[in-house]
Amino acid sequence: MENWYAEIITIGNEILSGKTINTNASHIARRILSLGYVVRRITTVMDDIEEISLVFKEAINRKPKLIISTGGLGPTYDDKTSEGLALALGVSFEINKDAYEMIVEKYKKRGLPLTEERVKMAKMPAGAAPVRNDEGIAPGIYILHKDIEILATPGVPREMENVLENFIKYHLKNRPNISYYENSFLLLGVMESTIAPYVKELVKKYNLYIKTHPRSKEMDKPELEVQVAGSSTDKEEITRIVNECINELKQIGTRLGGRVQEIM
Amino acid sequence: MENWYAEIITIGNEILSGKTINTNASHIARRILSLGYVVRRITTVMDDIEEISLVFKEAINRKPKLIISTGGLGPTYDDKTSEGLALALGVSFEINKDAYEMIVEKYKKRGLPLTEERVKMAKMPAGAAPVRNDEGIAPGIYILHKDIEILATPGVPREMENVLENFIKYHLKNRPNISYYENSFLLLGVMESTIAPYVKELVKKYNLYIKTHPRSKEMDKPELEVQVAGSSTDKEEITRIVNECINELKQIGTRLGGRVQEIM
Repeated sequence: MENWYAEIITIGNEILSGKTINTNASHIARRILSLGYVVRRITTVMDDIEEISLVFKEAINRKPKLIISTGGLGPTYDDKTSEGLALALGVSFEINKDAYEMIVEKYKKRGLPLTEERVKMAKMPAGAAPVRNDEGIAPGIYILHKDIEILATPGVPREMENVLENFIKYHLKNRPNISYYENSFLLLGVMESTIAPYVKELVKKYNLYIKTHPRSKEMDKPELEVQVAGSSTDKEEITRIVNECINELKQIGTRLGGRVQEIM
Repeated sequence: MENWYAEIITIGNEILSGKTINTNASHIARRILSLGYVVRRITTVMDDIEEISLVFKEAINRKPKLIISTGGLGPTYDDKTSEGLALALGVSFEINKDAYEMIVEKYKKRGLPLTEERVKMAKMPAGAAPVRNDEGIAPGIYILHKDIEILATPGVPREMENVLENFIKYHLKNRPNISYYENSFLLLGVMESTIAPYVKELVKKYNLYIKTHPRSKEMDKPELEVQVAGSSTDKEEITRIVNECINELKQIGTRLGGRVQEIM
């Protein structure tokens, strides 16, 4: 059997000091498990270029198919993931044209000047591609290295989740040779915290990846994207189970006073 | 400055699959930070002897002063930490006499027979000492290897916390050369969940390790041991701050209808 190993790297002193619980690693693990990957190792290291570089190198040497990191992509001096990754790969660390354009656009829209700290978020290992971040400024970093796909995501959970989804949608090439199926719908008028306990139950019942993504932040007009995903060697079976779960979620949403809308 | 690095290893497929969030690592990190250690790396690996052995070896090669693992000490076939650690250290894996006596005693008290699975929990790397587990059966494993102190704790949070405290109290030799101070008291008649939000606030206010240990499980007669610990280069200052925090906790406990009792 082919190895579909993945590794997760979390970067940040706040995790090592125990201040922040590593929920990002759990999210990434569950999400890539739904694609058929097996997570073999999760490593947390300090915000230190040498350490970051070392841990990427070690992961690469174990030859997984996929490495996903989270944290250390922001504008401040202690955000060192991108530079550490460049060092690990032995490539130069430079302004990425596409990333630069994404960032210029975002600050322009907000009427904010482009400072040195802000430009920093466009610096990436040579050969990388930026991954869209619809929830914040810093783009994710995608690079294919010796058939290992590497993705660096920001550490803010909302941004990490969004970059991860964009990576899966637009970049991921290596796909486990099993059937992956996902479906989603919009639920209007139900708050995320209201449906949360039902989602928790259904995760147990179906053993699928279920995630609600709030699309609006208004308390009075909540809008959730409800996503269900899973994989199996049996294509028909996984399609049936995901859709069964989607239907149950729609029923629950309606019972909670919400309105279901299909995603075009 | 001397290096007071520590590493944490968490063992378990349930963490790698994202099913369980790694709160154990955060607890251990906060606790040893209060002693003056700096956690340099947290690694999570599968329940696999080769992987466990490898990750212990790698940690040992980075020469920290302290390595603490959690998980994989139970009676079932997939609990492999002890054997993996023996393999990493290149020593035999054998029945530890003291551990065996602890385990025999516990099952005798409960009137249960000593099966092969139960005896398994007494098998340890040669040269190890068992660490008392007052909350469960499997003792912790303590071993001093080339001036690196290694502690293996169970994965059940209640048991891990207890074994960690017993290790700090009875085994830990390498102590950062700064002043460590801790104090505690008993709070009768207040449930842990009632005082929890106040504890959270005080952790932020004082930047200390604060932990409530429930001593009884009865809802109608709750009994909490409240522990506060910290370290600093200034002995007087840390003593003063810990005691100030203790006093504030006592006042809160009394206000919540509890009765404070000193620990003899």
